[in-house]
Amino acid sequence: MATSRFRSSEPALDALYDDLSSHYLQPLWELRGLLTPTPRVRAVPYRWRADDLTKLGRRAGELVPIDRGGDRRVLAMSNPGLDGAPFVSSTLWAAVQYLQPNEAAPAHRHTPAALRFVLQGDGVYTRVDGDPITMARGDLVLTPSWTFHEHHNPGDVPMTWLDVLDLPIVAALGAVFFEPATGPEVTAGRPARSATERRWGAGAGLTPAEARALSPYSPLLVYRWTDTDAALDALLEVDGTPDATVRFRDPSRDRDIMPTMRCEMRRLLPGTTTRRDRQTGTRICAVLDGSGTAQLGDESFDLAPGDVFVVPSWCTHQLHARTRFDVFTTSDSPVLEALGLHRSEQVDP
Amino acid sequence: MATSRFRSSEPALDALYDDLSSHYLQPLWELRGLLTPTPRVRAVPYRWRADDLTKLGRRAGELVPIDRGGDRRVLAMSNPGLDGAPFVSSTLWAAVQYLQPNEAAPAHRHTPAALRFVLQGDGVYTRVDGDPITMARGDLVLTPSWTFHEHHNPGDVPMTWLDVLDLPIVAALGAVFFEPATGPEVTAGRPARSATERRWGAGAGLTPAEARALSPYSPLLVYRWTDTDAALDALLEVDGTPDATVRFRDPSRDRDIMPTMRCEMRRLLPGTTTRRDRQTGTRICAVLDGSGTAQLGDESFDLAPGDVFVVPSWCTHQLHARTRFDVFTTSDSPVLEALGLHRSEQVDP
Amino acid sequence: MATSRFRSSEPALDALYDDLSSHYLQPLWELRGLLTPTPRVRAVPYRWRADDLTKLGRRAGELVPIDRGGDRRVLAMSNPGLDGAPFVSSTLWAAVQYLQPNEAAPAHRHTPAALRFVLQGDGVYTRVDGDPITMARGDLVLTPSWTFHEHHNPGDVPMTWLDVLDLPIVAALGAVFFEPATGPEVTAGRPARSATERRWGAGAGLTPAEARALSPYSPLLVYRWTDTDAALDALLEVDGTPDATVRFRDPSRDRDIMPTMRCEMRRLLPGTTTRRDRQTGTRICAVLDGSGTAQLGDESFDLAPGDVFVVPSWCTHQLHARTRFDVFTTSDSPVLEALGLHRSEQVDP
Amino acid sequence: MATSRFRSSEPALDALYDDLSSHYLQPLWELRGLLTPTPRVRAVPYRWRADDLTKLGRRAGELVPIDRGGDRRVLAMSNPGLDGAPFVSSTLWAAVQYLQPNEAAPAHRHTPAALRFVLQGDGVYTRVDGDPITMARGDLVLTPSWTFHEHHNPGDVPMTWLDVLDLPIVAALGAVFFEPATGPEVTAGRPARSATERRWGAGAGLTPAEARALSPYSPLLVYRWTDTDAALDALLEVDGTPDATVRFRDPSRDRDIMPTMRCEMRRLLPGTTTRRDRQTGTRICAVLDGSGTAQLGDESFDLAPGDVFVVPSWCTHQLHARTRFDVFTTSDSPVLEALGLHRSEQVDP
Repeated sequence: MATSRFRSSEPALDALYDDLSSHYLQPLWELRGLLTPTPRVRAVPYRWRADDLTKLGRRAGELVPIDRGGDRRVLAMSNPGLDGAPFVSSTLWAAVQYLQPNEAAPAHRHTPAALRFVLQGDGVYTRVDGDPITMARGDLVLTPSWTFHEHHNPGDVPMTWLDVLDLPIVAALGAVFFEPATGPEVTAGRPARSATERRWGAGAGLTPAEARALSPYSPLLVYRWTDTDAALDALLEVDGTPDATVRFRDPSRDRDIMPTMRCEMRRLLPGTTTRRDRQTGTRICAVLDGSGTAQLGDESFDLAPGDVFVVPSWCTHQLHARTRFDVFTTSDSPVLEALGLHRSEQVDP
Repeated sequence: MATSRFRSSEPALDALYDDLSSHYLQPLWELRGLLTPTPRVRAVPYRWRADDLTKLGRRAGELVPIDRGGDRRVLAMSNPGLDGAPFVSSTLWAAVQYLQPNEAAPAHRHTPAALRFVLQGDGVYTRVDGDPITMARGDLVLTPSWTFHEHHNPGDVPMTWLDVLDLPIVAALGAVFFEPATGPEVTAGRPARSATERRWGAGAGLTPAEARALSPYSPLLVYRWTDTDAALDALLEVDGTPDATVRFRDPSRDRDIMPTMRCEMRRLLPGTTTRRDRQTGTRICAVLDGSGTAQLGDESFDLAPGDVFVVPSWCTHQLHARTRFDVFTTSDSPVLEALGLHRSEQVDP
Repeated sequence: MATSRFRSSEPALDALYDDLSSHYLQPLWELRGLLTPTPRVRAVPYRWRADDLTKLGRRAGELVPIDRGGDRRVLAMSNPGLDGAPFVSSTLWAAVQYLQPNEAAPAHRHTPAALRFVLQGDGVYTRVDGDPITMARGDLVLTPSWTFHEHHNPGDVPMTWLDVLDLPIVAALGAVFFEPATGPEVTAGRPARSATERRWGAGAGLTPAEARALSPYSPLLVYRWTDTDAALDALLEVDGTPDATVRFRDPSRDRDIMPTMRCEMRRLLPGTTTRRDRQTGTRICAVLDGSGTAQLGDESFDLAPGDVFVVPSWCTHQLHARTRFDVFTTSDSPVLEALGLHRSEQVDP
Repeated sequence: MATSRFRSSEPALDALYDDLSSHYLQPLWELRGLLTPTPRVRAVPYRWRADDLTKLGRRAGELVPIDRGGDRRVLAMSNPGLDGAPFVSSTLWAAVQYLQPNEAAPAHRHTPAALRFVLQGDGVYTRVDGDPITMARGDLVLTPSWTFHEHHNPGDVPMTWLDVLDLPIVAALGAVFFEPATGPEVTAGRPARSATERRWGAGAGLTPAEARALSPYSPLLVYRWTDTDAALDALLEVDGTPDATVRFRDPSRDRDIMPTMRCEMRRLLPGTTTRRDRQTGTRICAVLDGSGTAQLGDESFDLAPGDVFVVPSWCTHQLHARTRFDVFTTSDSPVLEALGLHRSEQVDP
C-alpha cells in the first residue's frame, strides 16, 4: 500500500521517495502543474448543435422507455477535454432532457441543484415540492437543492429542454444526497398558475408582507419569457446600447437564484460584436433566438437557435450577432464570488 | 442661566437643587414619566376625512399661488395630541398636496425622504433626479433622501395626493439639509416611461446584470397600481384568506423601499374583521377603495375612500371591511427594526 | 378643538386658516424653519466640569437615600439649549451616577439602552442579566436594551461613573418599556470574572465555536481599560501618527456594540491639534486622562480629567492636547448610518 | 474523437450509443453512481504519525536544498483513497513543511489560500505582504489568497509545521493563479511585532475606528497560542463542560478567517469521549497536545502529539481523550455553508 512513487538517480533520495510513498506522502518539488501562472483547465470550448441534440433526443425517446432510464431520459454533454467524464466542465453538468407525450418523470430530490431552460416547444410542466409549473419556450424553471421535482407531459407532442446542474461541485464536496419520493403518484392534468408565481411573481419589488425566504435559494421558481423579453427591450432602450443583459435573481434578497449558479439572458442587436472577455469559472450558453458566432479561445463556432456551448474557465469569449441574438447563460460565478476567486477582464485582440 | 429648578422643603436639598440647576444638572429622582411601563405617546388616533381634505385643498388652490407657498401647496396633518406641531406623529409628517393645471412645483432636494401615494386622479408627473414619473390613482412614488424632485401638472384638472415624510425623525437627529435646484427649469410636456421603471421594473427577480443599488434606497422609484392590485388578488387566492398584505420593497436588496419608511397595501374582502394588534412606531393609513371602520384604542372611525388616519405607537388597531377594502399604510417600522425597538403583538378584546 | 391657527389680512385666506385649524391641518407655506439649508440644532456645545460633578454627586449622596431616588441616584446633564429638558441633546441622555459604600441600585430593565464609562475609582460591580461585571477606571460596561441590570457597591468608598442612554430616541419613537425585577435581591459579595468576558473576551477573533449573538447588541458586555490602553499604544506605534482612535465593537459581528450608540476611545500625543470636523448626530465626550482644549463652534473649553462635554449635530469640533490626552466618546452615529443620514466633513478654519 | 462509448446488445440502441459518443453525449440511464443516497466519497480516513512526519521531513531537509524544491520543502499528504493524487481529500491539501536554519523560502503568491499551524518548535517567521509574523508552537498563521508570503528561519534549529491549502477546490474551479515576487530579497533579521497584530489583535471587540476589512479574509493574520489556550480554559470553566471548542474568526466581520477554510481548536478533559458525529465536507485534524483515540468510520486511530488525521465527508467521527487533549481542526465548512450544502448530525452508536 502506497501512494505515487517518485524516482531519483541518487540512491539516498530514491530511498526517501520510497519511504515517502509508503507513508502516503509526496515530495512537492517533484510535483508539476499544481500552481500555474494562470488556470490550467482541462475542459475545452465546445458547441453542441441543436440539430444533433434534437435528433438524438428523439431516437432516445423511441428506444428508451422512461423507466429504463433510471427515471430521466437525459443526454449529458461530455466535455471533450475531460476524458470521458459526463460533465460539461469540472463544475457543471449540462444535458438535454426529452419527454414523450403522456410520459412522466417521477418525483425525487437530490442535493445537486438543477435548472431547466426551454429552448423550444411547450406542454410539459414540472412540479417543485408539489407546485406545478408549466414550461414554455424561453422560460427558466428552478428545481433547487433538495426540492422534490417531477416532470409531466400531458400533451400530444414530445418536448425537450436544457438541464444544468451543479453536480460536479456537489460531488467534489462529498455532499451528494438523493431520495425518491414515496407518496402516491400525482395525476397529471392541466395545472393552475403556480403558487410560486402567485406569491412571488407579482412584479418588481412587490412581495408578501411578512414572508421572507429562509431557504438558500429564490422563492420564485420560474421566470417567464414574456417578462424577460420585455426586460431586455426596456434595457436596450433606456441604456441606448446594442447589448443588454438581464440577470435572474432572488426577488426577496440580494443574491442569485441559487447559491451555485447564476443565470443571465443577453440580447445583441444585429451586427453587434461584443468585447472579448474572460473570467474564472464555467459558462454554459444556449442560443434561444437568432444567429451569430462565438469566438472561444482560438476557435470560432457558428451558432443557430438551440445550440449549446461551453466557455471554460479563463477562456477568451467574444460574440458576434448576425441577427438579433438572444443567448441564455448559466455560470458558477456565485461560487467563485463567495469564495473570493472571481476574476474577470477585458482582453484586447 | 440655569436648567429646570426643582424644589424641596428640606433646606439642604433645596440648596442642592439650586446648585444643580445652575450647573445644568437635574435630579433623576424628581423626574417623572421618563421610564414608563409601556410607551407614553402624545400623538392620538385621528382621522382626516377625504371630503375635508379635498375641499380645503381646492380652496387653498384658489387662494394661494404656488410661489407664495414657498414652493409647495401642502396642507400638513397636525396630530391633535402634539400641541400644534405640524406633525402627524412624533416621527412622521403627512400632508395633502394640491397642484392646479399648468402649475409646477420647482425642483429641490432635502435629506428628509418623501413618498407620494395617489388617492385619486392622475395627470401630474414627478421628476426624481431628472427622471419623469407619471402619477395615477393607486401609484406609489418615491422621492428619497437628497434626490431632486419637482412636480408638474401639464393637464387640465387639478390633482391632489398624499405626502408622507420622515421629517420629524430627521429633525430630531439634527440632520436636515435642504437645497433648491439651480439648473434651468424643465419644460413640462408629456414624459416617456420613466428610466427607473425600464431599468428596475421589468418583473420580479429581473434586474440589469451588473447594476446594484449603492444608494440607501430602492432604485425602483414607482410602484404601479396595476401590479399592486394583481399582486393582492393573487395573494388572496393562493393563501385562501380574506386578508392579504403586499409590501413594497427594494427589488435589488433585502430591505424596505427606504431606510426610514415601510409601505404596504392591504386588501380585505367584504365582511372581514382583522385581529386587534398593536406595535411600536407610527402607522399612517389611507383608504384607497371601499368602506369600513377602524377601531383605534377606544375610538371607532368610519372610513371612506380618500380618508387618512394615524395609528400612534402601541395604540390598538383593528379594521372592519364593509365592502372590499384597500388600505395603504406607511410606517416607521424600518427605524424601529434597525434599532432593535420593534415590538408587535395581537391583543385579545 | 383645533391645531395652531395662522392669520392672514386677506379675509378669504384668514377664513381658510380658520377652517384648516379646526380640521387639524396647517398650511406649509406659513411654516418656517422646517427645511433648513443646514441642520437647525437646539442643543448647544457645553462642558460639565469634573469638579462640579464630583461635589454635587457627593452632596446628593449625603442627602438622598437610594430608595428615595426612585432606584438610581443620578444627576442628568441638561443641555442649556433644550429649555429645561433633562437631555444632553435631542437624542441622548448623559448623567453621573453616584453609589455609596454598601448601597445597591436594584435590578430593573428598560428598552432604552445604557452604557457606563468609569472616569475614576473602582469597587462597584453591575449585574447584567445576572452576570456580575466589576467596574474600574477606564472600563466600558454595557447594559443593553431590555437587559436586567443592578449596581452594587460592596466596598468602603463611594463611586461615581458616567451613564449614557439613548432615552430621547426611544421616547421619540414611542418605544419606552420599563419593568422592575421581581426575583429575590441578589446578595452582594465579591463576584468572579464575568461570564461575558470568559465567553467572548478571550482575544481578537476567538469565539465559542457554535455561539452566535442573536440579540441586537454585543454579547461582550465589558471592555477593560488594560486592553483599550494597549490597543491605543499599538495603533499609535504601527501607524506612526500622534492621533489614534479605537472603536468598541461587537466581537461577533460587523457592527457597533449597540444599534443606537457608538463608542470610541481617542488618544492624542502631547501638542497634537486635530483637524476641525463636523458630523450629523450628537457626540458625548469625557476626558479620561490628560488635559487640553475643545473648540466647539465658536466656543473654547478647557478640559481636565473627568470633564464631560457635548458636541451637537453639525457643530464644528477640534481638540488640542496639552499633555497625552485620552478622550472617550459616545455618539448616535449608528442611528444616522442605519437611516442613511450620516454626514461628516473636515472643515478648514 | 469521441467521449465514453456505451454498449448495448440491441443493435438500434448500440447504434444510438455510437452516435451519442461521437457527439460528446452520454446516456444518463447507463451512468451509475452519480446521484447516490448518501455521499460516495473516495477519500478514506487516515492518520499520519508525528514521528514519521518528523523523520521524513529531516531526511528531506538533508537531501533536498530549498532551491531544488521549487521553492518550498514540503511533504504533501496523499489520501490513500485518491489513487495517488497529492491531496488529503478532494477539497483540501495538507502537508508538512521543513525549514533548515538560515534557510528562506522566497516570496510568491497564489490564489489558493494557505494556513500554517505550528505543532512544535519556533524560530521561523513568515512575511505576509511584507509584514513579519513570528511562529511558535500552537500559533495559527494565515497566508490568504493572493497575498505574497515567504518563510525565514534565522535561528539555529530546523523547524517544521503543518500547511493546509484549499488548492483542490481552487483547481476544480479553474481559478489557480501563481506569481513569484520580483522585488529584492528581504533580509532576515529578528522582526518586530507584526503590524497585523498591532492593528487588529488588541483584544476582543477593539478595532481601529475607521478601518474595515475590504478583503475577503481576516485582517488579523495570526492567532497566538497564549490567547487560544486561555480562551479554551475560560470556556471550559464558564460552561462547566469537559469539551470546549474555540473558533478562529475574522475579528472585524461575522465570518470565518478565510472564505474556504474554518479553523477551530478543541480541548477535551481527560477521560472525555465525544458524541459520534458526521458532517459534509473534509476535516483535517492535528494533535497539539495530549493523547487519545479517534474513531473514524470503522477504524480506530491512536493519537499522539503531532499526529495529523483526515475525516472525510460524511464519515463518522468520535474522539476519546486519555489525557487533556488539544486538537486543531481545519475544515472546508465555509464552502459547504456558502453553497447551502452543509449537513451535520449526531450518530448514535
